[in-house]
Amino acid sequence: MSTPVGETVALSLDEVRSMTIAALNASGADRANAEAVADVVTRAERDGCASHGVFRVPGYCKALIAGDSKGDAKPTVERRAPGVVFVDGDRGLAPLPMALGRPMLVQAARENGIASMAIRNSAHFAALWPDVEPLAQQGLLAMSYVNSRAFVAPAGGTKAVYGTNPMSFACPRRDGKAPMVWDQASSAAARGEIMIAARDGHSVPEGFGLGPDGQPTTDPNQVLEGVLLAFGGYKGAGIAMMVEILAAGLSGGELSYEADEQYTGHGGPTHNGHLVIAMDPSAFGADTFIDRIESLFERILDDEGARLPGDRRLANRARIPKEGAVLPAKLVAEVRALAGTA
Amino acid sequence: MSTPVGETVALSLDEVRSMTIAALNASGADRANAEAVADVVTRAERDGCASHGVFRVPGYCKALIAGDSKGDAKPTVERRAPGVVFVDGDRGLAPLPMALGRPMLVQAARENGIASMAIRNSAHFAALWPDVEPLAQQGLLAMSYVNSRAFVAPAGGTKAVYGTNPMSFACPRRDGKAPMVWDQASSAAARGEIMIAARDGHSVPEGFGLGPDGQPTTDPNQVLEGVLLAFGGYKGAGIAMMVEILAAGLSGGELSYEADEQYTGHGGPTHNGHLVIAMDPSAFGADTFIDRIESLFERILDDEGARLPGDRRLANRARIPKEGAVLPAKLVAEVRALAGTA
Repeated sequence: MSTPVGETVALSLDEVRSMTIAALNASGADRANAEAVADVVTRAERDGCASHGVFRVPGYCKALIAGDSKGDAKPTVERRAPGVVFVDGDRGLAPLPMALGRPMLVQAARENGIASMAIRNSAHFAALWPDVEPLAQQGLLAMSYVNSRAFVAPAGGTKAVYGTNPMSFACPRRDGKAPMVWDQASSAAARGEIMIAARDGHSVPEGFGLGPDGQPTTDPNQVLEGVLLAFGGYKGAGIAMMVEILAAGLSGGELSYEADEQYTGHGGPTHNGHLVIAMDPSAFGADTFIDRIESLFERILDDEGARLPGDRRLANRARIPKEGAVLPAKLVAEVRALAGTA
Repeated sequence: MSTPVGETVALSLDEVRSMTIAALNASGADRANAEAVADVVTRAERDGCASHGVFRVPGYCKALIAGDSKGDAKPTVERRAPGVVFVDGDRGLAPLPMALGRPMLVQAARENGIASMAIRNSAHFAALWPDVEPLAQQGLLAMSYVNSRAFVAPAGGTKAVYGTNPMSFACPRRDGKAPMVWDQASSAAARGEIMIAARDGHSVPEGFGLGPDGQPTTDPNQVLEGVLLAFGGYKGAGIAMMVEILAAGLSGGELSYEADEQYTGHGGPTHNGHLVIAMDPSAFGADTFIDRIESLFERILDDEGARLPGDRRLANRARIPKEGAVLPAKLVAEVRALAGTA
């Protein structure tokens, strides 16, 4: 029985979590790996981030079922230098190595003022803000960088070299306010946006991509056969290159074009590298840090029309735990089928 | 006697350096401060970066003559944490504190794998690549962040809050090759570009700025009365905010709108904050780091039309030391007049 397109169901966050764990377990994930993934999926749904919530569960399951990501991965965490936490993800999904390494990263940042965590052999398929928000909740400034498969052309080029290469930035706030966190791809648009435009017969803005002939195009089908462009021209391409080098270079994880060459077409995430940097403002001696950041944010919000990044997420966070996550019925049916409970 | 517009003179790099030192000395800089500024000015001319070479000397002199920047500033360098070098610029120009702090930053990065240098009470008026290139020449990955006066609107806003907020990224290369370094403002265009368009009666592209009414405009005069926009829309505005928080927040230096409020109109740089982060790839255990980065760069250059950032600078660097720096005669006359040797 097919579910009509557009039909939705509301699930409680507990239901989101247990459904996700069941689908991952049935696809081969052990308890630790399934719970870590379900945690980031549930936090995404809590914040209304549909693109990184339950929507990603079939992809995680496909990577497990294909045997490309290990469901029983046992990440190892070591302190390679006072400021370097190194995590080998054991060819599993990223949420578990990210969660296992974080306490040592916090400790290293407090001891040294700045520290980093490099992760390799790990498949990242989530938003990046859940990786850094817990650090800012503990008073740290944090940035993270993740590469992916090759989708984005270098400055002036026409062939895919960089991943969509997102980065994130998190800044603590006063009085237990939720941290300010942004999280953005280095590509002008997500590949998913282009796919939706193609499905719906819409054109895409100039600057989103090039066709297979290397020429600018607004035809999403041409972009899908061609290459994505970085946001903001050569400056965004500079950011994409930086993310590639920080995420894959320092960790020794796959560069985006290497991940592409290894990709078996399962539809889930590939193994790459990730880097998180955490800084403790108190170690810099700026004891007015939080007051000055709040003044900056006030100044921004004085400007009618200006918003802080993430404010829509935080508004959702106040509402969705009570109202539940509204999900496409077809997606819920797919995840339940993966769990064997459809 | 006025010099015709467009007339140029070629100076040797030694002449650039000595002329710059003379102008700074005559404006109140002591030997250490004048030599540090002349070093970054001369390196800019060596690399053909006209916008950050001798062109900046009158601005440095104006800040000194106005008494806003101290010519005899004595920066202090301290290690506030294993990974934190903290430099107080003593209300002088940035090149001296940057140069004095760098050896301790290198040492801290080697000991910890990652380290940072925060600088406050320091007026940055140079390109950012000279700050990070020496780190990459010693095998370190490096990033730097500098804020300025308020010129750029936040995402969705119409009033200036952020500086043009440049950042830079430097990556070491194999076999003594010059590091790959990029250096880019967070604004879509430099304010100087808008001023040149206004002078020449040209329009500027959509997305460069808003008029004083808060509406998008292609009239450079309207942009100069209004506000600049970040590159690449809200994503560039996210970068601008990050630079503001990293540069001014961690150091305790002036936020861009604070610098604006203190600015006395002298035409030179204001005091702000700067942050440099340095990472030692060998501390991460990726002993193939350089080989993999070279593979990435080869892949980029395989793509006809693609270039590595900074390659024009490096081509100039091979040529200009022999041929000399070609400078507007009017600018040379202005700097010589400042030196009292016109």
